[in-house]
Amino acid sequence: MNAPIRRGGRRGQRATAAEAPARQPNYSQLKNPFPPMRAFSDDHIAAMHEAALNIIETHGIKVLLPQARDLFRKGGARVDDDTEMVFLGRDIVESALGSAPKSILLCAPNPKRDLTMELGSLIFQPGAGAPHATDGVRGRRPGTSEDFCDLIRLTQHFDVLHMIPPVVEPQDIPIHLRHYFMQEAQARFTDKVPFVLARGTPQVEECFEMLSMVNGLSDEAFQARPRCYTIINTNSPRTLDIPMAQGLIDFAKAGQVSIVTPFTLMGAMAPITVAGAITLSHAEAMAAITLTQLTRAGAPVCYGTFTSNVDMKSGAPVFGTPEHFRASLAAGQLARHIGLPWRSATGSASNSNDAQAANESQMGTWGCLMGGATVVLHSAGWLEGGLTVSYEKLICDVEVLNMMAELCNANDTTSSDMGLDAIADVAPSGHFFGTDHTMERYQTEFYQPVVHDYANYGTWTERGAPDATKRATTLWQDILSQPPKISVDQDRLATLQEYIAKRTAAGGAAPVS
Amino acid sequence: MNAPIRRGGRRGQRATAAEAPARQPNYSQLKNPFPPMRAFSDDHIAAMHEAALNIIETHGIKVLLPQARDLFRKGGARVDDDTEMVFLGRDIVESALGSAPKSILLCAPNPKRDLTMELGSLIFQPGAGAPHATDGVRGRRPGTSEDFCDLIRLTQHFDVLHMIPPVVEPQDIPIHLRHYFMQEAQARFTDKVPFVLARGTPQVEECFEMLSMVNGLSDEAFQARPRCYTIINTNSPRTLDIPMAQGLIDFAKAGQVSIVTPFTLMGAMAPITVAGAITLSHAEAMAAITLTQLTRAGAPVCYGTFTSNVDMKSGAPVFGTPEHFRASLAAGQLARHIGLPWRSATGSASNSNDAQAANESQMGTWGCLMGGATVVLHSAGWLEGGLTVSYEKLICDVEVLNMMAELCNANDTTSSDMGLDAIADVAPSGHFFGTDHTMERYQTEFYQPVVHDYANYGTWTERGAPDATKRATTLWQDILSQPPKISVDQDRLATLQEYIAKRTAAGGAAPVS
Repeated sequence: MNAPIRRGGRRGQRATAAEAPARQPNYSQLKNPFPPMRAFSDDHIAAMHEAALNIIETHGIKVLLPQARDLFRKGGARVDDDTEMVFLGRDIVESALGSAPKSILLCAPNPKRDLTMELGSLIFQPGAGAPHATDGVRGRRPGTSEDFCDLIRLTQHFDVLHMIPPVVEPQDIPIHLRHYFMQEAQARFTDKVPFVLARGTPQVEECFEMLSMVNGLSDEAFQARPRCYTIINTNSPRTLDIPMAQGLIDFAKAGQVSIVTPFTLMGAMAPITVAGAITLSHAEAMAAITLTQLTRAGAPVCYGTFTSNVDMKSGAPVFGTPEHFRASLAAGQLARHIGLPWRSATGSASNSNDAQAANESQMGTWGCLMGGATVVLHSAGWLEGGLTVSYEKLICDVEVLNMMAELCNANDTTSSDMGLDAIADVAPSGHFFGTDHTMERYQTEFYQPVVHDYANYGTWTERGAPDATKRATTLWQDILSQPPKISVDQDRLATLQEYIAKRTAAGGAAPVS
Repeated sequence: MNAPIRRGGRRGQRATAAEAPARQPNYSQLKNPFPPMRAFSDDHIAAMHEAALNIIETHGIKVLLPQARDLFRKGGARVDDDTEMVFLGRDIVESALGSAPKSILLCAPNPKRDLTMELGSLIFQPGAGAPHATDGVRGRRPGTSEDFCDLIRLTQHFDVLHMIPPVVEPQDIPIHLRHYFMQEAQARFTDKVPFVLARGTPQVEECFEMLSMVNGLSDEAFQARPRCYTIINTNSPRTLDIPMAQGLIDFAKAGQVSIVTPFTLMGAMAPITVAGAITLSHAEAMAAITLTQLTRAGAPVCYGTFTSNVDMKSGAPVFGTPEHFRASLAAGQLARHIGLPWRSATGSASNSNDAQAANESQMGTWGCLMGGATVVLHSAGWLEGGLTVSYEKLICDVEVLNMMAELCNANDTTSSDMGLDAIADVAPSGHFFGTDHTMERYQTEFYQPVVHDYANYGTWTERGAPDATKRATTLWQDILSQPPKISVDQDRLATLQEYIAKRTAAGGAAPVS
């Protein structure tokens, strides 16, 4: 956040409103400027890493997919097919950590949206995987195809949301056709890095075909670079189920990105302590990462964690707690220990877009930022611990992410200019509104809010006293009332739609392997 | 945040719910664990310090109080009584910075509430100085004596609020009697460090007398240690008005703490850039600090800043913005440059206790924490940029402060225990709810929320779908329905009340010097 010292322009030409340049913030390709914070000593982190290697080697991981067990066996692991247990020597794991790339260039349909996934870069994603959607107009309901498209469009609209996740589950689309719908929607409404759900090889392979069409590429050209990603959750504790193991293999084969994320809730599917939950998570993540490298050495894979605690009264997962924060710090330390890009997550357990929702999400996000996260998932829109995505919360969270992005971009501002001429010119008890120093900058110096309202109480009351949620409703309606701004290659889209029609007529693809 | 590695108690006796110790968090005497972040390079900070010294020396500070100008003159400053301007050589300022204490022990009526004001410690105060109050029962209204007492009681209730500010202005009490009321209310309802408003020597001296009575001390014993504080705002740019200058002198003479805080709004009373506003603020603060040291070398004084930006459309002050955040970082760097304890501030411009209010306050607070603040003012309850204090927002903000305090106290937890025995014992896809490792810790491991609600959507809806604001209303009503828990020396209180009755009968004290 350093910038050269510049002199104020007191004697320069007075800038007028018309001349003053409009503000053009850049929220793409962010670098994380926040000093990393430690939860534990470096020695303790090394001990956690050792303990995790020992868990994989001694206690083992249950791997339900025979093909995955075969890959592990061929890689040198001890495998017991009766119990489905895999015991991985640390040399195998360490070799896999060595071949996994430290930096991944993720290509988007629009090259301006390309992302570098590595420690030090900062990528925000909105909330993923909600079965329900809610907004101020239609209320809370099961997610639909309309919601799915709307939420992709909102994600596309805000530069600070860098990748597309499956924000909501379009429950009105039959599951054997849902992947067609998801890919077509992404082709139509976004030029950012798209996702593919790992719901069995047939669906995944069709998704790769569709993405090749959308990008106008041969299969070989498609596979030559990472162009999409999936999220792989282990079944904690210590289980890798069939679709997840298959996904790791399918994505590694095709050179596409798996984000490996154990979901280890302290006190439920993991030990109640931060160190225990993170050690277990680390073991599971390393086992899954190893599978990608045994499939294809050098395959792009992102180390992931999602560790929070549960409410011990109800067993419900909670987010943005001090324990969640510390878990993010510890996970970030382990990510730096192994050197891989790291996906973390925030979230909220609140049932409405209220102060709790805001405070939990922001607290969780700070944990990710101070942990040094590469990817912050669920950073906008998540309510009810991810059971519902809120249109209004998505808008309110984007405001916070934008402000964080501003802090990443401080070098772009003139904020280091001391304005000494202005200080000399303004008399005691005077004001700076009219100085050249102010006039030259008044349109560009400050962040312009999305939904925050700076009207005074009287004006605000006259306008009907709209709170942030109410204003957010107006805002997303405005955005969605405009035609999408991305340019879509209509020929490629037609090819895609033809493909989808043919496959649909042929019965689609069941989510099995 | 390091802690020794401990082994799980798998073979130990199984803890039962009855045996498990209750959680007793300690939110007093916090140390700031967050790594400080820089807004500018160290060289640039040194240049800002030099520029500030130059502003004081070359452009000068307007000082409206003749007594203060005399003190400056005697200290070696060039003084022009016609223009009321004071020009301070850097040697005078540097000498003052040298004699100001780096660490201040602030004594509270209850020694457990004593505070050490120095870089590295972390002290939270709720919002100060609001003319209005609002809550979910009575709505928004001018602040009253009832509000004043209620809000002291709420501040007293939460350990994480460490000092008492004048949260709200009791407008129903005549101004010449208000200081009696404020001191009596503090004597009755809190044992934390109290404030005194610098509203002229007669009121200040009476307040010191009253505090001596409450503490059962002679005047000499009272003055031997800092036992209260005041906030001194300069009139930016470059003006020190009569009551503020008088306050600096009166508090320094009595060995009590002045927190010197220019309120420099970027683009309004200060240059539009972060560096400009902070340089001006630094100049004004150093001039005021110098006055305390010229009055009495070694007088306790806290370096303060409150720099945010204005909305350039309306001129309204805004808070929790990226500019506010960066200003806090820069001010923290200057505080470390001169080595004095540093008071910063957060806040919100929102008109209701909504997501905006939460996000602004939390963002502003993170700026303070990452700037290395000693005192974070306005950290709970502030709406409308401080024009209104909200009972509900105070509760919601306390939740965030508690969580931040948890992060300060990570050493107290067992979170570094990896629970390796539990990991070994729980089968793949099993759960940790019933393990000894969990049972021994389930009542103590996790933060227990104040107002955050973890009920699922169904349960929450059955309960009437209360949002955080609604729940906060119930909570503060509960707290205020209980009798105050502090022990008050009834004899001293009677002495105080007698004194107040006598002084009131004699006409009180006007807020003039």
